[in-house]
Amino acid sequence: MYFWFGFRSEVSFCIGTHLIPHPNKVERGGEDAFFVSNFKGGVIAVADGVSGWAEQNVDPSLFSKEIMANASSLVGNLEVNYDPQILIRKAHAATCSKGSATAIVAMLERNGTMKVASVGDCGLRVIRKGQIIFSTTPQEHYFDCPYQLSSELVGQTYLDAVVSSVELVEGDTIVMGSDGLFDNVFDGEIVSTLAAHSDVVEAAKALAKLASNHSLDSRFDSPYTIEARSKGLDVPFWKKILGMKLTGGKLDDITVIVGQVVSSAASPQPT
Amino acid sequence: MYFWFGFRSEVSFCIGTHLIPHPNKVERGGEDAFFVSNFKGGVIAVADGVSGWAEQNVDPSLFSKEIMANASSLVGNLEVNYDPQILIRKAHAATCSKGSATAIVAMLERNGTMKVASVGDCGLRVIRKGQIIFSTTPQEHYFDCPYQLSSELVGQTYLDAVVSSVELVEGDTIVMGSDGLFDNVFDGEIVSTLAAHSDVVEAAKALAKLASNHSLDSRFDSPYTIEARSKGLDVPFWKKILGMKLTGGKLDDITVIVGQVVSSAASPQPT
Repeated sequence: MYFWFGFRSEVSFCIGTHLIPHPNKVERGGEDAFFVSNFKGGVIAVADGVSGWAEQNVDPSLFSKEIMANASSLVGNLEVNYDPQILIRKAHAATCSKGSATAIVAMLERNGTMKVASVGDCGLRVIRKGQIIFSTTPQEHYFDCPYQLSSELVGQTYLDAVVSSVELVEGDTIVMGSDGLFDNVFDGEIVSTLAAHSDVVEAAKALAKLASNHSLDSRFDSPYTIEARSKGLDVPFWKKILGMKLTGGKLDDITVIVGQVVSSAASPQPT
Repeated sequence: MYFWFGFRSEVSFCIGTHLIPHPNKVERGGEDAFFVSNFKGGVIAVADGVSGWAEQNVDPSLFSKEIMANASSLVGNLEVNYDPQILIRKAHAATCSKGSATAIVAMLERNGTMKVASVGDCGLRVIRKGQIIFSTTPQEHYFDCPYQLSSELVGQTYLDAVVSSVELVEGDTIVMGSDGLFDNVFDGEIVSTLAAHSDVVEAAKALAKLASNHSLDSRFDSPYTIEARSKGLDVPFWKKILGMKLTGGKLDDITVIVGQVVSSAASPQPT
């Protein structure tokens, strides 16, 4: 999808998105959810429903979809005051579905300041002149168990969010995604994929497809399996004797949002 | 060294520092420089003189030391307005020495907002509850050639700084260092070293010693050599046939600053 944002602002996002559901969850559309908004310089957000809820007969996509819908409708709320942490607080409070989700929200001010709030292992990268200059860092309780906003009291809240901001300039590109992207694609691959696709929609699609291809490749040494090995997880010793090691991508829902920072003069009027 | 900061502030830094010069540069004290200040919530900064200047008979430590001295004296300057990017601009403009340096500055507001500006490959990590929740990312022209503030026009300026901020809370620990730290110590080692040393001075010393030990270990697969290999650098093929690979730490000056975020109530008055 294309989204053009950019009237009366000094800088704003030109945004492309692409979502590829987990191969086993295609019918329901997967458990990731996202939204984009043209409010001020642009707002983007991703939530990833925690799949463990399926074991309790709860559809894991309901919570992530509802919290994103709530966040979307609260973007211009006066109490939110264009603060992503408060947006998470109010969207979480308004969510009635059972379940839990990781979530990340980024809000661009017209002056170039992008504020980010994140709970869990969704992520964001800023690329400037072919280099990653800013990265978020995932939060997890232990391997593969991220911090999460939940319908239950045991979960995390907006108070557990990592809140940061970065000054963006025209020409910067941002990549936001669920862990399905960052568990399967290395930062260097993100940079090279962006270099090969100047169009944001094409770039988002290419990154999602790369993540999907890696996720299906049992021999790809993905960021996910490298992390798993670093946490002491491994294949059984008798497979090791045969020279095998823990490899492969991670099957998951994959959401990618690519945003280019454009000046108001360079961006077309919304149609 | 100990530095206690903390009067009339909601949060502030309690800071320990440790510098280990390059083994061949011990007599001059190395080419790293740093300063700490108790202004507002606390200001910390590191500069790393670019060693290539020695080939032109310029002492690489002069530029880094002068720019840090200038920054230190400008911390409360009204035009700086407690903005680390403006501090870099003014400190750079005031520096007369020939040479160049990478530099990072972090300024903590009493409300917990820490603003960071960085040019090059000095770095900063924020650790909360045993996890890294915020990292800076190095900027380089190519492998081992970082962005740098320079006496020459070809260098970078404050306009090239990556400017970011993160909301800190009581109990957070920050680690700032020159590339001599981050090229030799993995993020996981930083976390485990902090867990073993509650005292900030001891933690800074332990991190610097760990970096120094790794830098001297020709068999240690350091972040630096992993990065080198990922950039296509390698040992000659005839050594590869013998099973050798590019390994080892990176001999360098090592500067470590560890800061703990304490509430004003918890921090003693300065003596």
